[in-house]
Amino acid sequence: MTIYNFSAGPGVLPEPVLKKAQAELLDYQGSGMSVMELSHRSSWFEEIIQAAEDLLRELMAIPADYKVLFLQGGASLQFSAVPLNLAQGKKVQYVNTGSWAKKAIAAAQKLKNVDVKVIATSEANHFTEIPAVNSVDSDAAYLHITTNETIGGVSYTQLPDSGQVPLIADMSSNILANDYRVEDFGLIYAGSQKNIGPAGLTVVIVRQDLLAQADLDIPMLDYRLQAGKHSMYNTPPTFSIYMAKLVFEWLKDLGGVKEILRYDQKKAALLYDAIDASRLFNNPVKKADRSLMNIPFVTGDEALDKEFIAQAQKAGFENLKGHRSVGGMRASLYNAFPLAGVEALVDFMRDFEEKNGGK
Amino acid sequence: MTIYNFSAGPGVLPEPVLKKAQAELLDYQGSGMSVMELSHRSSWFEEIIQAAEDLLRELMAIPADYKVLFLQGGASLQFSAVPLNLAQGKKVQYVNTGSWAKKAIAAAQKLKNVDVKVIATSEANHFTEIPAVNSVDSDAAYLHITTNETIGGVSYTQLPDSGQVPLIADMSSNILANDYRVEDFGLIYAGSQKNIGPAGLTVVIVRQDLLAQADLDIPMLDYRLQAGKHSMYNTPPTFSIYMAKLVFEWLKDLGGVKEILRYDQKKAALLYDAIDASRLFNNPVKKADRSLMNIPFVTGDEALDKEFIAQAQKAGFENLKGHRSVGGMRASLYNAFPLAGVEALVDFMRDFEEKNGGK
Repeated sequence: MTIYNFSAGPGVLPEPVLKKAQAELLDYQGSGMSVMELSHRSSWFEEIIQAAEDLLRELMAIPADYKVLFLQGGASLQFSAVPLNLAQGKKVQYVNTGSWAKKAIAAAQKLKNVDVKVIATSEANHFTEIPAVNSVDSDAAYLHITTNETIGGVSYTQLPDSGQVPLIADMSSNILANDYRVEDFGLIYAGSQKNIGPAGLTVVIVRQDLLAQADLDIPMLDYRLQAGKHSMYNTPPTFSIYMAKLVFEWLKDLGGVKEILRYDQKKAALLYDAIDASRLFNNPVKKADRSLMNIPFVTGDEALDKEFIAQAQKAGFENLKGHRSVGGMRASLYNAFPLAGVEALVDFMRDFEEKNGGK
Repeated sequence: MTIYNFSAGPGVLPEPVLKKAQAELLDYQGSGMSVMELSHRSSWFEEIIQAAEDLLRELMAIPADYKVLFLQGGASLQFSAVPLNLAQGKKVQYVNTGSWAKKAIAAAQKLKNVDVKVIATSEANHFTEIPAVNSVDSDAAYLHITTNETIGGVSYTQLPDSGQVPLIADMSSNILANDYRVEDFGLIYAGSQKNIGPAGLTVVIVRQDLLAQADLDIPMLDYRLQAGKHSMYNTPPTFSIYMAKLVFEWLKDLGGVKEILRYDQKKAALLYDAIDASRLFNNPVKKADRSLMNIPFVTGDEALDKEFIAQAQKAGFENLKGHRSVGGMRASLYNAFPLAGVEALVDFMRDFEEKNGGK
């Protein structure tokens, strides 16, 4: 039985990447050592981290005046690191689009010397759309957005206009799967476990002029220090960086972000069309703001949702259960998720609907 | 040619562990998914992280009133997290035994509301011994030590008496390779990349009564929060935790810490005896304080050191170059490093000495 893994993260990885990692797991390129055993100061590993950075720069067209950092701790640690680096003693503005935006806001609010304002929210609409940003205070240190919400399944297609105020994005769940331009952001951060590689790596892309001018109290969170040390202030998560490099190579071979975006759009359209044509399944998100990555849907009957998830799992569809905070179903279709898996799911849904009757 | 990897970290991993990881890399226990693709909320992964904790508790005889946390960021992030959790507004005491102790001290000193005192140091002796701790202030929040210094090659065989003051240890480089008792510490932390697994995981073992009573400003650094969420406040480094579990299983099968310590002592004695018997090579560390894990040595002639390292590398001895801050050679003999590699090195050293003449 083919297994299709709809996990919201850690997500599915490209099979060729896993096969390559497997083949050289005990002997990295004739070194006689596993890539996990390489000293991070060795020329072997220095080549890996440099190649990972070069590939990411190429894939995302990252301008030269941006630093690329390979860090740890996930987006959740960046929720604190961003205001600590960019906004101590300053005012910051946030857009509340759902669960992840809320976490970013809550972490910033815990810092006593940062003044946090939420200037737009779609909470009243149960986060089924991206709220409009009407005006950004020009003296804010930044405007923070969450480009894709994994739980609500909403995503920005058009970025808000923040004028001269740097736009900061948690891009964890749709990095390398969008047509945003890096130069429209002051800083982008992303946990790795969706479109980059296995969990345990965090990518930060920051415009050089935004690096703090003074040392931070916590050296490991200091972007300027990490940039100066090329992400080797301490031992980096070497295997995760190696895996990211392999994923970047795979993506480049496929034709890069433009090609994968076309593929992601095709996969998402197939599932959204099936949901919209169905009399049983429903997705509540405003069409223009629907995520390509995370597609929640419900039957409207909790018991039937549960039955669907159970039957789907038996048929090889893993991790279709919605987030515990919202229930229902969720299909996460990250870059490495195959079209064949969406086709199979859509068939399975039609079959389930026939047997269980549309309302 | 057999390759022996003397890296100070990321270090050599047990071959059976790498082989097991390789065999199931694309299909974890019949799940049809790589362990890297498992949702951290899946029962598959919950079993892995629980087993890792259970095994570590068994191997280290961790009492029930200690929490075990699986975090990210390495010991370097703990250099800040420890005082933030345990000592805001308080006085703390440190022992300076070398490079890593200095980093821990420097990070604590950057915190404005922590009063840092260094109460013992061996800096005057170039860190070639563990300094005596004569008296610990009873009102200090903790006494911090670095149980093993990877660069200087010194290690504690007897712990300082800190009375009622909690003893805190950076045990990154000799965790699972010593006969310390966990109950003698208030908190132990360790980066994974020496005796635990690949880089990217940090283990914290903390006595429950030392968990902060108030929330920290930075949620990800908050031990109480992380303990309450069983290290799943956000996505943990799942693959690193899986690898740690495999290493713990390997160590348990070998007979546990007592057995590996005997093996480590045998390996280290072989190399120290060869160095002490040599007229060419020298290790400057006081015998009682010599590390079992990291053994630095020099010829006293920089050009000859360089020649030795170059010839050794050609013969399959990798990463024997000493840390860039001290030069010379260094052999790191972590748990997974085989005795055969030390025997081969000792033979190679004798041969080199014969050809290059002892002084």
